[in-house]
This record gives sequence, C-alpha cells and structure tokens, in this order.
Amino acid sequence: MSYKVYMSGEIHTDWRDVIRHGTEALGLDITYLAPVTDHPASDAAGDHLGEQTDNFWRDHQSSKVNLIRTKGMIEQADLVVIRFGDKYKQWNAAFDAGYCAALGKPYITLHAEDLIHPLKEVDAQSFAWAKTNEQVVETLRYVLQP
Amino acid sequence: MSYKVYMSGEIHTDWRDVIRHGTEALGLDITYLAPVTDHPASDAAGDHLGEQTDNFWRDHQSSKVNLIRTKGMIEQADLVVIRFGDKYKQWNAAFDAGYCAALGKPYITLHAEDLIHPLKEVDAQSFAWAKTNEQVVETLRYVLQP
Amino acid sequence: MSYKVYMSGEIHTDWRDVIRHGTEALGLDITYLAPVTDHPASDAAGDHLGEQTDNFWRDHQSSKVNLIRTKGMIEQADLVVIRFGDKYKQWNAAFDAGYCAALGKPYITLHAEDLIHPLKEVDAQSFAWAKTNEQVVETLRYVLQP
Amino acid sequence: MSYKVYMSGEIHTDWRDVIRHGTEALGLDITYLAPVTDHPASDAAGDHLGEQTDNFWRDHQSSKVNLIRTKGMIEQADLVVIRFGDKYKQWNAAFDAGYCAALGKPYITLHAEDLIHPLKEVDAQSFAWAKTNEQVVETLRYVLQP
Amino acid sequence: MSYKVYMSGEIHTDWRDVIRHGTEALGLDITYLAPVTDHPASDAAGDHLGEQTDNFWRDHQSSKVNLIRTKGMIEQADLVVIRFGDKYKQWNAAFDAGYCAALGKPYITLHAEDLIHPLKEVDAQSFAWAKTNEQVVETLRYVLQP
Amino acid sequence: MSYKVYMSGEIHTDWRDVIRHGTEALGLDITYLAPVTDHPASDAAGDHLGEQTDNFWRDHQSSKVNLIRTKGMIEQADLVVIRFGDKYKQWNAAFDAGYCAALGKPYITLHAEDLIHPLKEVDAQSFAWAKTNEQVVETLRYVLQP
Amino acid sequence: MSYKVYMSGEIHTDWRDVIRHGTEALGLDITYLAPVTDHPASDAAGDHLGEQTDNFWRDHQSSKVNLIRTKGMIEQADLVVIRFGDKYKQWNAAFDAGYCAALGKPYITLHAEDLIHPLKEVDAQSFAWAKTNEQVVETLRYVLQP
Amino acid sequence: MSYKVYMSGEIHTDWRDVIRHGTEALGLDITYLAPVTDHPASDAAGDHLGEQTDNFWRDHQSSKVNLIRTKGMIEQADLVVIRFGDKYKQWNAAFDAGYCAALGKPYITLHAEDLIHPLKEVDAQSFAWAKTNEQVVETLRYVLQP
Repeated sequence: MSYKVYMSGEIHTDWRDVIRHGTEALGLDITYLAPVTDHPASDAAGDHLGEQTDNFWRDHQSSKVNLIRTKGMIEQADLVVIRFGDKYKQWNAAFDAGYCAALGKPYITLHAEDLIHPLKEVDAQSFAWAKTNEQVVETLRYVLQP
Repeated sequence: MSYKVYMSGEIHTDWRDVIRHGTEALGLDITYLAPVTDHPASDAAGDHLGEQTDNFWRDHQSSKVNLIRTKGMIEQADLVVIRFGDKYKQWNAAFDAGYCAALGKPYITLHAEDLIHPLKEVDAQSFAWAKTNEQVVETLRYVLQP
Repeated sequence: MSYKVYMSGEIHTDWRDVIRHGTEALGLDITYLAPVTDHPASDAAGDHLGEQTDNFWRDHQSSKVNLIRTKGMIEQADLVVIRFGDKYKQWNAAFDAGYCAALGKPYITLHAEDLIHPLKEVDAQSFAWAKTNEQVVETLRYVLQP
Repeated sequence: MSYKVYMSGEIHTDWRDVIRHGTEALGLDITYLAPVTDHPASDAAGDHLGEQTDNFWRDHQSSKVNLIRTKGMIEQADLVVIRFGDKYKQWNAAFDAGYCAALGKPYITLHAEDLIHPLKEVDAQSFAWAKTNEQVVETLRYVLQP
Repeated sequence: MSYKVYMSGEIHTDWRDVIRHGTEALGLDITYLAPVTDHPASDAAGDHLGEQTDNFWRDHQSSKVNLIRTKGMIEQADLVVIRFGDKYKQWNAAFDAGYCAALGKPYITLHAEDLIHPLKEVDAQSFAWAKTNEQVVETLRYVLQP
Repeated sequence: MSYKVYMSGEIHTDWRDVIRHGTEALGLDITYLAPVTDHPASDAAGDHLGEQTDNFWRDHQSSKVNLIRTKGMIEQADLVVIRFGDKYKQWNAAFDAGYCAALGKPYITLHAEDLIHPLKEVDAQSFAWAKTNEQVVETLRYVLQP
Repeated sequence: MSYKVYMSGEIHTDWRDVIRHGTEALGLDITYLAPVTDHPASDAAGDHLGEQTDNFWRDHQSSKVNLIRTKGMIEQADLVVIRFGDKYKQWNAAFDAGYCAALGKPYITLHAEDLIHPLKEVDAQSFAWAKTNEQVVETLRYVLQP
Repeated sequence: MSYKVYMSGEIHTDWRDVIRHGTEALGLDITYLAPVTDHPASDAAGDHLGEQTDNFWRDHQSSKVNLIRTKGMIEQADLVVIRFGDKYKQWNAAFDAGYCAALGKPYITLHAEDLIHPLKEVDAQSFAWAKTNEQVVETLRYVLQP
C-alpha cells in the first residue's frame, strides 16, 4: 500500500530525516511531504512578488505562497505528523492540526511530556501522541503492514 | 441582522467583555459565544467522568468535553474572533483558526504587533487583523450595518 | 443556548427519562429527540405499507421507516448520547455512532465498565464515556453553562 | 476496471481468504483491504506509545491507532463488505456500517439468517445481504463484469 | 416537532390535498411545499423574461425558473414524497428522486403496483413505497409521533 | 487528457457502440463506463442472493446490486451521457440525471425532438442536448482537444 | 414562505430599491441582503485597522472586511440577483456568480442586451436572465407564490 | 511532485506559453490545463448541436459546452492561475476566481498595477498576485521545490 505522510511543524531539528530513514529501513512505501524547511527561504517565499516595507504584509505575502504548497500537501496526505519542539511559538503547527481536524484528516502529534498540558486541545483530536521519532516509525509500520 | 460571534483564545483578560459592551453600546444584535473561561473549571471539565492519575488522560478527557461545547459553537458562528495574548502557548487558539480555515468560516485575529511574525500563517487565512478591542468593535459595526 | 440531544440505543430501561429529569431540574434548555421506543411498534413501523411474509423484508421495510425519523433527528442534533445496556446485540446503537463519526457530529457513550473492550472502536471516536446517567447530566450542565 | 474492497468485521474465520480466492479464480482485478486481523496485535496496536495501566485508555490508545488504518481504507474503498459472525459483540462492524452509510459509501453485509432481526438497521442501508461467501463473490463478479 | 415535506410529481390529481387533510386531522405540525401545480402557469414560468420562438428554449427558460423554487424547497425539506401517476412521462419526478438520493435526503415514493418494475431504481433508494395516500399519512404519523 | 464517460439510459439500441467507435476513430483517450446492458441479466442481478416470490422485493434486491456498479461509475466519471429512447418509462435515466445534478457532475442528454417537453426539467440542468450520436462525438472531440 | 435574496453588483443606480418596492407592493415576504453600497465607505472598510500607504494592501484589507459581510450573506441567501451595469469593470459581480455556481446556490443575472456576449459564461450557470427590474420582481412573485 | 495548473483568462497574448516554457526550463513536472483559446472556435463550441438564430441562446449553448471542459479542469487542478489583460470585460476570468474561492481551490492572479482597484475582491481571496509571467514561474518553482 502506497502512502503519503505530511510532516508539519518544527524545522530546526532533523526529525523528518530520522523518521524517513526509519521507515525506509523497514521497506515501507511512503511518500513524505513537507513545507519548505529552509527558514530564511520560507520567510522570503513571496519576496519575488514585490518588496514590502511593512512587516505584516511581507509576512502575509510569504505565508500565502507557502500555503499554496502546504494546503495542497495536507489535503492529499493520508496521515499528518505534527511535531512540536521546545522553542518558538509554533502556532503554524497547531493551525495545521485544526485544519486536519476539520477535514477529518488523521494526524498524530510528536512532542515531549512537558507539552502535554498546553497541547491538550490539539491532542484531543489526534489519533496518537508519540514522544519519540521511533514511536512514529513503529506507528507507521503497524498501520502499513500488509 | 442577528449575528453570532464566537470568541476564541485568551482567557486571562477582559477582552470579551470590552467587545461585548462596545457593540451593545452601538445597539448591534450579536449573540456572543465562548469557551468556558474559568481556567480551573475548564481543566477539570471531564473529572466527573472519572479521576485520572495520568496527566495526559486527565487532560484528554477534559479537553474532549470542552470540545463538545466549542466545536458546536464554532460551527454555528457567523464569525470567529481569535485573541492571542502575551502569555502561555495558546495552541488551542491557533487550532481554532485552522479549524475555521478548513471550514471556510471567517475569522479575525486580535493580537499585538510583536506577534506578527509567529502568527503569519494564522493571519494569512484571517479576514482581518485587529490590534485593539475597539478595532474589533468597529469591524463588527461595519459588517452589521443595515 | 437552546440545544438538541438525540438519545440513541437501549430502549428497555428508563435512562432517557432520568437524564431528561436531571437536566430539567437544572433548568437547562434542551430538546430531547429519540427513536420510537415502543419495541413492538418499532418492529411494525412499516407494516401499514403491506404485510410481508418474509422476515427479512418485513424488518427491512420497518427499519427504513424508522430511519426517516432517526436519520433526520441525528442530523439536526447538537449532541448524540448513545446508551449500550447489558442485553441484546444493540448493533443499531453502534451503527448510529459510526454515522455520527463520519458526519463529525459529537456523541458520547453511556455504558458499564464491562463493555469497555468490545466498545473500544466506538469509544475511540466518542467525545466522552459516561458510566452513569448522572455523569451525562453533569456533562450537559458543563457544556451548556452560560 | 480496478476495484478496491474493504473487508470489515469478523476476524476469527477465513472468510476474507475464501472471497479473495473466489474472485482471483474469476480473474477479477480487486485490491482487498482489511484491518489488522491478528487479534492480540490489534489489541496492542498502541502499546508502543506507552504502557497504560487503565484498561480504558489502553484500548483507547490502540483503537485510535487502528483507526488510522481502517478509516483511510474505508474512505478509499469502492465497496465495503461487512461480516457478522456468531460470536462476540462485533460493534466495530456495525460502527463501520454506520460510517459508510453517512459517507454514501456502498456496503454489503454477510451474515447468517438468525441475525436478520438484530441487524435490521444495518441491513436497511446495505446494498445487498449475502448469506455465504460465494454470494459475495458472485456479487463482485456481476458488479465488475466488463 | 415541526417538519417540512416537499411533494413532488403528479399534478393532475388531488393527492397533495388528501395527504394534507389527513395529517391536519391528526394534528401533525407539517409545512407542505410543492412545485407550482398549475400546468399552463408552470410551462409559462419564464415567458415574462422574453418570448421564445424555439420550443426547446422556451421550455429551458421556464424550467430553470421553476427550478429556483423546487431546488430550494427540496433542499430545505425533511422528507420528500414523490408521486408517480398513470399518465405522462413524469421524468421530472424521477429526476427529483435522483437529486434527493445524491443529497442523502430521505424520500418515499407513492405509486400503483403496475409501476413497480419501471420504478425499481427509484424505489431502490427510497425509504418507503406507498400505494395509497393513506399509507403516506400513516407513515408521517408514525415518523412524527412524540 | 484521459477521460471517463458514463453512458446512462437506453439499452435496446447500439448508441453506446456508435459513440465509442466515433471517438476511437478520432483517437480520443476515453474510458467508457456503462450499466450492465443485458436486460434479463440486469433484472436478475440479485437473484443469486435468494429467490424472491414478491416482485417488488425481487426488483429491489436486483436494483441495489446494480446500484453498486452504477453509483460508483457515475461518481468517478468526468461526464455522463444520458440517452432517452422512444420506448419504456426510462425513469432510471432521469434518476441518474437528478443524481448528477445534485453532485455537480456534468451530464449531456441525447434524445429526439419529440421528447423536448417531457424532458424540460432534465435538460434544464444538462450541459448540452444532442439529437444524434454524432453530435455527442463532436462534443467529446471539442471538449478533449489538446 | 420567508425568503432571503442577496443583491450583488452595481451600486450606482437604485435597482435594489426598485425591486424591493416592487415585491413589497405584492406583499411578498422577502429579506433583502446587500453589500455596503456606499462606495467610499466600502473602499475604506478596513482603514480603521491601520492606514496603508500601498494601494494594493489598502484595497486588500478593505475587501477582506467587506467579504466577512458578503460571504456570509451569500451563503445564507435562498437566491442571489446579480446586476451588471454599463460602467466599471464589475469583476466583483462576476466573482460572486462563480462563487454561487460552485456552491450550487441559484442566481439570476440582470443586465442589458449588449452585455450578452461578455457575460455568456456567467449566464450559462444562471437560473434566469432578466433585462429589467420588473422581470426580477415577476420572477420572485412566481417563485414565491403559495 | 507532479502538479496540475489550470490557466484561466486572457486568450489574446502568449502568457500561457511563456509560463510553460519557463517552468520547463526549470525541469518542473507540471501538466498545464486551459480552456480552448481559439476565440472563434470557443464561440462556436455548441454550434454543432444546432444553429441558433438568437444570440443569447447561441452563446448559452456554446458556453455550456465550454463549461464541460473548464469545470472539470478547474476541479482537478492543484492551482489555478488567472490572467487579466487590458482589453475586454473578462468576466469569465473573475467567474473562475469566485468558483475557485468557493471550492477552497488555491488561485493566483496575474495582472498589471492599474487593475488593482477593480480586482480587489478577486485578489482578496487569491494566494498571490503576480505582475509578470516570470513571477508566476518563480512562484511555481518555489512551491514545487523538492
């Protein structure tokens, strides 16, 4: 069974690669989708459309260009994995979770124990909470077994 | 025109009351909906279903009970106002924004200038960004004029 | 806030009345909806359309007439409460749960502890599991508080 | 015409294999999908995410992991076959039927005559009722003829 | 329970009145909706928009004006009753049935026994088949009982 | 551009073959879908599930089996062509048209001039009315041009 | 029958008043909805959220605020009347037509004969084309007759 | 990642070719879809169905045939690019934008600065505004990067 997984959230650690390598080692047939994870490139995604002097509109223009990519990827994914790290606001990750919930698209969260309480609404609609990358790999192995 | 507004997000300041009073003074016919804003009561929303020793499941049980209320309110609202304050993670607010976006339900954000960058994906799908409660009141006055 | 609750499942005990009385005592504004709970009348719901000699078609004809009522009620309900008792197959109750899950309609289950394991798929999509009628009443009180 | 069939329900007999072999012998191009049918593995589907001491939460965690698989499979299937056997509660099978009904996804039931009455609501929305595996094979042959 | 019933099909007998009087006598709270049943007026529904010399376009213009009314009524109805008489092609009635089926809107058919075979696809998705107006009244009484 | 066309309606003339040959001669890449057009086989589609002594239920059982095929085909088609001939009631063809209309699925009708008036509601939602098979072929050629 | 009509398009003539007075004279129970028709106020709809030096963003901010109103009104309307005048680009009116078409919301167009050709795609999905306000009034009278 | 882009709007300049060549030079895997851009052929799209003496019906017939093509293409596209030039009414382009907005289908606009004001409602729902073909190419490069 071919399967598409969108990996949302944290872009400052290598969790996407760890999970990808883990499922490749198991021979699973998964296509991984992700936002542009180069932070400066992502912030500048709309700059080619015109320089903005106002921060709000620069961010607005760039985030809409990013949305063309991410919205399409989420909608075609079979499963979304959403990673919350220990830095930054990460409201985009929670936004993706809400988007999935409304679509009825299954997602699983990946975060440490100390984020349980602030993520309780996000976890309430999640299909699984993983604390480690290995748990995500094992979940994918289970779900995709023949 | 009767109108329903769901007020999502920050529960530690009186922004909901300020907006309500503002539109009442203008004679606008608006029904305001909101989550349970008593923080300890909200955290304990599911405790009557059984005490949980594990924090994750206590939060899980409570947040699902809260969801019965908030999901129904968001779905029947004409407009959602989402407030981000200067404290806490507020992932539930971003989650609500994503939920609205996927439903095609209009929402507006209410937050200070220093949150522009971390909220750029949330603002990208918003129909307005207000910095003050008064701007929300004025937006409602404009939208609901005869 | 006016609210509609559809009460699905067991028809041989008075759980619907207990919950109704409980929320009336609290002054909650709830309209309760339910299938026809007179068992022989329900089995005979389609007999006026023509006597059937074959059991399958008699049941088929009657259950479709019942469905006109129950499908409409579930779709207009804000919340569905699904009761599993200790007798009978009660597949109709599990069917209603699946129907709600696909619609994104919140439901809560009401059953004893010894049914946890066979109901695990039904509970997985539920917004709350109550063991007693009083817990359902308390959940409604919480959800509907001003 | 390539076709996907999801086989829901009873996991203690070889009905899935019998049907698969039957349609293979006819040269039909069908991809069969199914839940994980290894009962202990299915009950333990979520154990890798953390041991749960409370039975309810262990089952909850596992059934949600199973749901990632089964929900996706049902949604992509062209047809769902739902088998009710003579043992166990099998509420998950009735739940799947309700889920299909709400989606407008065609399903057929497979069960013995003595289950007609308790399954009448499930059969009311079914596109066919088969008593034997051979009848399911013949139905698939008919539906998929060139 | 207030209820809306759209009455589709035959416009040359008084079946609508018979059913209406029947449920009024029972005290049922039903709002009946119907197409314009004055045949010449219905054929001329679009003539005020411009005289058409070509029959096809005259009919096209009129049937679209009628559709504004009937489409809205079907979509807001709780139940649709579709009557097939013994004259005319009545393709509009079968069209309404297909429209309801795709929307998941319950409908019941009302026709004599000699139409069973040509209506088999229409009846396959119907929630009941009535042979007499009295059977429709009794079905409504059953569905709407307190 | 690969394209799927479902051909609904009349099963007693060779119109499906004429259109198929016409577009093959033009080199168009079209997959044609159709109901089972062997009339006795179609009437007997459900007989293998059990002999029915009552005509209504025999037809009911068979038409639901046919529906598994036709419902799936209509939903995956890019375009539906619906042929009305000069014999029989053909309510199934009008039913398919209504089904397409509610789904927003484009369909075109194929019928002689003398059916304009009784088909006016069906044609009102159609994307084209063709009088000859050649006109359907030409429509497909136009729509599918590079 | 109570009815909601959204009046989209031209804001420089009094067509909305003429139609409203026309149906009031007939005693029709219609609630009319409309965008803010004060042109300068509409252009300034978002100015209270912050002055924009860039024309594009000023227009962007204002048109999103207007959209909160118009999107909600279109979605709750039973019918949309779209007026194209002889001045300006009026792309917002064509946009509303496309929006209605995708929602399956019936709309009628109101424009002079010399706009037939450029509006052909808009008229193709319309339920009626009126040349005069009186024709719209007559259409509403017909649709809403008892 | 394979990707489908529908190119709506202006048919009198070579903007489609410029963008196609631009992304081919970058090695992007994009399937481009477009309406029939031969203006006289498009106006005559329905003529083979019967000559119409009335301009309105000739245009009506042709635009519905064109709609079979364009509606299907828009619905399967991942992204729609909508070009507004300096001539003609181009209401079909704005119509397509509204259609996309209601479906939640991302679109970007391509137009000169002097059209900012009349296109403000169209741009309000757009995911990007490009002034040049090169900006569209760059947007596609960004969105489709590995």
